Amino acid sequence: MVSLAPWRSSLSHALHRNRKPFARYFQLATIGMDGIPANRTVVFRGFVDGTNQIKIITDSRSQKYDQIRTRSHGEICWYFTDTREQFRIAGKLILVDKDTPTDDDFKLLRDRTWQDLSESARLQFIWPNPGKKRNPNDDFTVDPPNPNQPVDNFCLLILNPLKVDHLQLRGNPQNRYLYECDEFNNWSVVEVNP
Amino acid sequence: MVSLAPWRSSLSHALHRNRKPFARYFQLATIGMDGIPANRTVVFRGFVDGTNQIKIITDSRSQKYDQIRTRSHGEICWYFTDTREQFRIAGKLILVDKDTPTDDDFKLLRDRTWQDLSESARLQFIWPNPGKKRNPNDDFTVDPPNPNQPVDNFCLLILNPLKVDHLQLRGNPQNRYLYECDEFNNWSVVEVNP
Repeated sequence: MVSLAPWRSSLSHALHRNRKPFARYFQLATIGMDGIPANRTVVFRGFVDGTNQIKIITDSRSQKYDQIRTRSHGEICWYFTDTREQFRIAGKLILVDKDTPTDDDFKLLRDRTWQDLSESARLQFIWPNPGKKRNPNDDFTVDPPNPNQPVDNFCLLILNPLKVDHLQLRGNPQNRYLYECDEFNNWSVVEVNP
Repeated sequence: MVSLAPWRSSLSHALHRNRKPFARYFQLATIGMDGIPANRTVVFRGFVDGTNQIKIITDSRSQKYDQIRTRSHGEICWYFTDTREQFRIAGKLILVDKDTPTDDDFKLLRDRTWQDLSESARLQFIWPNPGKKRNPNDDFTVDPPNPNQPVDNFCLLILNPLKVDHLQLRGNPQNRYLYECDEFNNWSVVEVNP
């Protein structure tokens, strides 16, 4: 079991003090198929138990799925509006999809993540293809999918953090800490100028 | 004079309906010097008059300055918490710094943007080098810089939008529109699946 990184207590604290539902939204940057940056809001689905890995979900029909298959680096920018602090979390992304071997621990986690979703979240995975031209005849009022068995295009996305930049805008001057993970999975921290 | 793009009215509407100060914060993704994505919160400073160009400011000592000099593409992700809608604005970034020729219209705009900043915003540009190791002896209690004349490291950053993806989470199903700009600066729009 990996020990929790030193930035985890600051992040827990921020989550505790920012309790609006949108405090669990953050922006994930990846690199598009054309090599230019892509950026979108996604929902924090918690950490993989006993690790520093961040859970997100996505649809294998989405652009980010193809982007991440091609280039696995990503950076989360997570701004907390109440406490006015930002966490930039950079790392590598792991896609856990229908083709992940069943003996992979993440495959079971994909099932559990699907089961834990709300029905409205699950419904989006059986809606018409996201990002394609909308057809007024397309049916969005479909029956909910099986809550126990993920649909094929449901994908668990895991960010394995390697670098965390924590900026607190409150305070004069502001406070900023840079955390880095070495090859032995040890985290170091240095206080830097805001 | 460029006519205003069709997504501008939706964005104005969102800005009008989301009046908290943080509604003017968005996340800007660029590509790092190492080729991996970078993502941070920046402040919307309005549009360049009569255009669709978005004003941001930065410090030439920051990482994004070097990143943008090397690769000028960026994507803004702007999520409005009250109305639950997202604008993804992709385009090319233009740096307007001390070396921009004085006969360039943007150079004058750099001066005006500096003059319009609050004193606390201006102060950050004379603080010790951002991102460098903090030295407890460093002085952050400096006298404010000249409000009329930008300091050398002050940089105006302009995003010239080429593509806008507008997602409204309210509504069942959600609504999503994709705007694109052609080489003649004409915008088209298509409704796509959320």
